[in-house]
Amino acid sequence: MALIVQKFGGSSVANAERVMNVAGIVADTYKAGNDVVVVVSAQGDTTDDLIEKAKEINPNAPRREMDMLLAAGEQISISLLAMALIKMGLPAISLLGWQAGFHTNSSYGSARIKSVKADRIKMELDRKNIVIVAGFQGLCKYDDVTTLGRGGSDTSAVAIAAAMHADRCQIFTDVEGVYTADPRKVPNAKKLKEITYDEMLELATLGAQVLNNRSVEMAKKYNVELEVLSSLNRVPGTIVKEVTNMEKMLVRGVTKDTDVARISVIGVPDVPGVAYKLFGKLAAKNINVDIILQSVGRDGTKDITFTVARSNADEALEVINSCNLFGGSNVVCDTSVAKLSVVGAGMETHPGTASTMFEALFDVGVNIQMISTSEIKISVLIDENDADRAVSAVHKAFFPED
Amino acid sequence: MALIVQKFGGSSVANAERVMNVAGIVADTYKAGNDVVVVVSAQGDTTDDLIEKAKEINPNAPRREMDMLLAAGEQISISLLAMALIKMGLPAISLLGWQAGFHTNSSYGSARIKSVKADRIKMELDRKNIVIVAGFQGLCKYDDVTTLGRGGSDTSAVAIAAAMHADRCQIFTDVEGVYTADPRKVPNAKKLKEITYDEMLELATLGAQVLNNRSVEMAKKYNVELEVLSSLNRVPGTIVKEVTNMEKMLVRGVTKDTDVARISVIGVPDVPGVAYKLFGKLAAKNINVDIILQSVGRDGTKDITFTVARSNADEALEVINSCNLFGGSNVVCDTSVAKLSVVGAGMETHPGTASTMFEALFDVGVNIQMISTSEIKISVLIDENDADRAVSAVHKAFFPED
Repeated sequence: MALIVQKFGGSSVANAERVMNVAGIVADTYKAGNDVVVVVSAQGDTTDDLIEKAKEINPNAPRREMDMLLAAGEQISISLLAMALIKMGLPAISLLGWQAGFHTNSSYGSARIKSVKADRIKMELDRKNIVIVAGFQGLCKYDDVTTLGRGGSDTSAVAIAAAMHADRCQIFTDVEGVYTADPRKVPNAKKLKEITYDEMLELATLGAQVLNNRSVEMAKKYNVELEVLSSLNRVPGTIVKEVTNMEKMLVRGVTKDTDVARISVIGVPDVPGVAYKLFGKLAAKNINVDIILQSVGRDGTKDITFTVARSNADEALEVINSCNLFGGSNVVCDTSVAKLSVVGAGMETHPGTASTMFEALFDVGVNIQMISTSEIKISVLIDENDADRAVSAVHKAFFPED
Repeated sequence: MALIVQKFGGSSVANAERVMNVAGIVADTYKAGNDVVVVVSAQGDTTDDLIEKAKEINPNAPRREMDMLLAAGEQISISLLAMALIKMGLPAISLLGWQAGFHTNSSYGSARIKSVKADRIKMELDRKNIVIVAGFQGLCKYDDVTTLGRGGSDTSAVAIAAAMHADRCQIFTDVEGVYTADPRKVPNAKKLKEITYDEMLELATLGAQVLNNRSVEMAKKYNVELEVLSSLNRVPGTIVKEVTNMEKMLVRGVTKDTDVARISVIGVPDVPGVAYKLFGKLAAKNINVDIILQSVGRDGTKDITFTVARSNADEALEVINSCNLFGGSNVVCDTSVAKLSVVGAGMETHPGTASTMFEALFDVGVNIQMISTSEIKISVLIDENDADRAVSAVHKAFFPED
């Protein structure tokens, strides 16, 4: 007997049929003798519909009231799932975020979990209930409903698993696990059996979109073993856990991220402090800068190039213009770029990874604009139009056809 | 400056436009210098839609989970109304039933309010907030969400008004107040300026459908002054309060109720205990009996006739049949009857009321099947097909054309 936390996203409970499907998965886990805590998101488009309702009335609705509104979405899905399990003859009870003991700070709309006081969950498990918890929501010290923001339900699930020392936290989604590349784009992409937290974090950051970063960080911090798997096909997924004697792989995956803009400030004075001022001003506006490249000074000037999310590009340009280009002669912004990355804890000890990647790109004629490396990742900036072709070529270099 | 509680039903907040209309009413009350607490129901068809969702999954869903589900409806409407007021530049905050301090018993689906601990409401009023409270819902001792059942939001509003000693509790609806008869049927029906709690209770019971009975009973018990008025036209409504120096009126209103079935058990033995057994068995099945008429015994037998709600008729017949007609020879059920009533505290001291009513019915050829009287009401049972004609005639007798 184990304690299993299972999380199902909005598309998994979008309608009555899907709710019954989820109930079937939960029921099987329970009947196998496990204690089961289930975390669910709002059904399908519910959250978007509620946001639409709010916009009609007040496009600048305060976050506190938005949280009050949106939290109704999970309230609906948890009660429906409980009803489905009860219909199957199983004991089940639904709990709102506050009933499940989720205490958060008061950053409405993007609250952070401060603690999970799981007394009620434990009591219901002792009574042999399947406990269905509303994801994405909690209560702050003012006794107000809060929501956790993007990917909040994943985080809720991991937080419960951490607080209760669950044996496993299963994140059900519409893919069968984590792949070496996007399987819709790269036909021979392979599903990984295992992956480390750090590799998963890099993949999530790089646009693999399987697991929310906050939830992976929390899982790493509290050593919660995650499994990413499909709610539609009953096959084993990908386990995310700390490296122990994990199967050695040079590279875990190849990803692309097209939400990138490249900005270059040309001809800034080659004196100390320019980069500090530039990135300080951007940070003050909460603009996240990713890859940074500074040219070697020549003729007393240098060029500074960096990437930001496309949605931040205009604001970044405003900052630069309002500061007279920091003494530069020109600023250039290119939004038709993509970031291609290979991720793998194995590459730390394999210096050949970068050259394999660059060779694969050279072979298909893809120009590399910028390069950035970390211990477990190599990213290159390329033309957006080359991205899919580049992913295939690099994937093939690391995962030859069977 | 006064403390005003305002309640708006589901049709008053059915869409964005109506929510803005309600916000306008609330805003005017607040700008006039009042403290305002607003109670709202779920938007339009939300509750029905949620019930439909539940039925798809589990037609016999447990009430605890139904309450969890349905409570989401008010959560949506309170946040939207708060957003609307904030858009108008006014300070507003929404509170769920439990945040507003509604403690109920654990009769899920039809919970009774045990207390309203209005500390949070008071704190928000002190901060000059307009406080928007979710009607229809509370929290029981198990920390579970409960709903109050039919007319619950009216009851929520009166309970807050009682707990906070509000100066007035305004119940907004789609009619302009309480009328001497149904204005859709009787063209010269008059809107009443005032009415007593007891008169309102009789009218509600008799099918006037303006105010929920539980809320009127609670208002009477705690002496909360109610006003029934329209959310669409800004005109004074009808005040419901204790008799003081209220305008003297013989009769307040004429109503009909067609949710009536007449059952006669013919030829039961004229011995003690038959009525006790009959009505005891019906009460055990929770069947509410209204008018009762027992014939004078003759030849050792008597007939017992009574009325029940039509939905209870079949079950009442089953009870009677299962008890061998209580020794009677026959049982007859007529579902094409209607109850016509005149209500008015003035009739206590005016013995002529009954004869005026009977004369009006005689003049239009309506046969009276049964008669029942109380201190402030006279009801007669007539053929359903005569009902509208009878209401007009009786109304005309008490309220001559201007």
